[in-house]
Amino acid sequence: MISDAEYERQLAVYRPFTDAVRRLIDAGIRTGVDEATIAEAQAAIEGVTERLVTVQHNSTSTLRNADTGRPLAYTNPAVGVRNAIAPPMEIHHEGGAGAGGRCWAEFELGLPYEGPPGLVHGGICALVLDHILGESASDGLTKPHFTGTITLRYLRGTKQGPVRAEAWIDRVDGVKTFARGTLSDADGVTVEADGIFIRPSWARG
Amino acid sequence: MISDAEYERQLAVYRPFTDAVRRLIDAGIRTGVDEATIAEAQAAIEGVTERLVTVQHNSTSTLRNADTGRPLAYTNPAVGVRNAIAPPMEIHHEGGAGAGGRCWAEFELGLPYEGPPGLVHGGICALVLDHILGESASDGLTKPHFTGTITLRYLRGTKQGPVRAEAWIDRVDGVKTFARGTLSDADGVTVEADGIFIRPSWARG
Repeated sequence: MISDAEYERQLAVYRPFTDAVRRLIDAGIRTGVDEATIAEAQAAIEGVTERLVTVQHNSTSTLRNADTGRPLAYTNPAVGVRNAIAPPMEIHHEGGAGAGGRCWAEFELGLPYEGPPGLVHGGICALVLDHILGESASDGLTKPHFTGTITLRYLRGTKQGPVRAEAWIDRVDGVKTFARGTLSDADGVTVEADGIFIRPSWARG
Repeated sequence: MISDAEYERQLAVYRPFTDAVRRLIDAGIRTGVDEATIAEAQAAIEGVTERLVTVQHNSTSTLRNADTGRPLAYTNPAVGVRNAIAPPMEIHHEGGAGAGGRCWAEFELGLPYEGPPGLVHGGICALVLDHILGESASDGLTKPHFTGTITLRYLRGTKQGPVRAEAWIDRVDGVKTFARGTLSDADGVTVEADGIFIRPSWARG
């Protein structure tokens, strides 16, 4: 458990660092510099990595916010503020976690998430929707749930750029929570999702 | 169109560079170095990015292999050899592209792909399966297809480490191709997928 203040302090250190790695990923795809410059860049990156790994924390122990009980998403590839793979989604819970499971996120999906030219990869749409439906079904990850089944209907391609994901609980039936959600680009809904999330037996009381 | 030889030359330059960025992503999640060292690392990364973006190629024009007609996956977040977000999957087509659409890939999913502690994020399983079902349905991306619907059934958590994804065409009905696939960890199948892929109207002849 860590306090809000300590979490904010950590974000101020790690968020700009991770954003710098995100820009490096993008530059690595786009660059047309010559082989010698690529080799120099590689050596510089390896030097940075060597310094970073001299001290490692135990990242598999999930820290939680002492006030809200919500896990701190450092590693997660959808929302992790310390994971350069994550866009990251910053998920807003309407009325707060526990207030019915409706949530949304607005974020950017650029070149590193490309499938067909100019469009977001369908599997990235699936990653984003799986994550936000899961957050919705578990009331902001305060209640453990595992994905049972998820179905994604692709209405059309999702344009690269600003997107919005949202999810809500449709109904609850025993240990099953039925969540629904959508992904939208500037022109409207592009992907619809339905998920069944199951409360694990160890969490049933 | 580029030749096999030119593609191999490019891989030799870009693959080790992109692997270095992948190790940096992992180190950025694990590191416990102090704030000053993080700030120095950030500045070094920003310096590398600045040099890389001085020359940029037009990465949205899809290059194809002159011999096989298959696109070269530089950017793709599942298979892109120049995209540090991609594991990357290296997809093998049994009997070659066009020989029935059965394909498989064996690769590693480590810490940057983590959802629950020690397990792969369900949305990453979805990304991987969406991609390989799509390759299967389009015979190695030689025939254009878009995902219509995909359903993922999560049988249990997927352990981090070596995984295997496979996909095959179940049946074809007019413009619809029905593909199926599985993701497995060391202990067997963890996720099953069913997808309906649709040939776009501009590609129907």
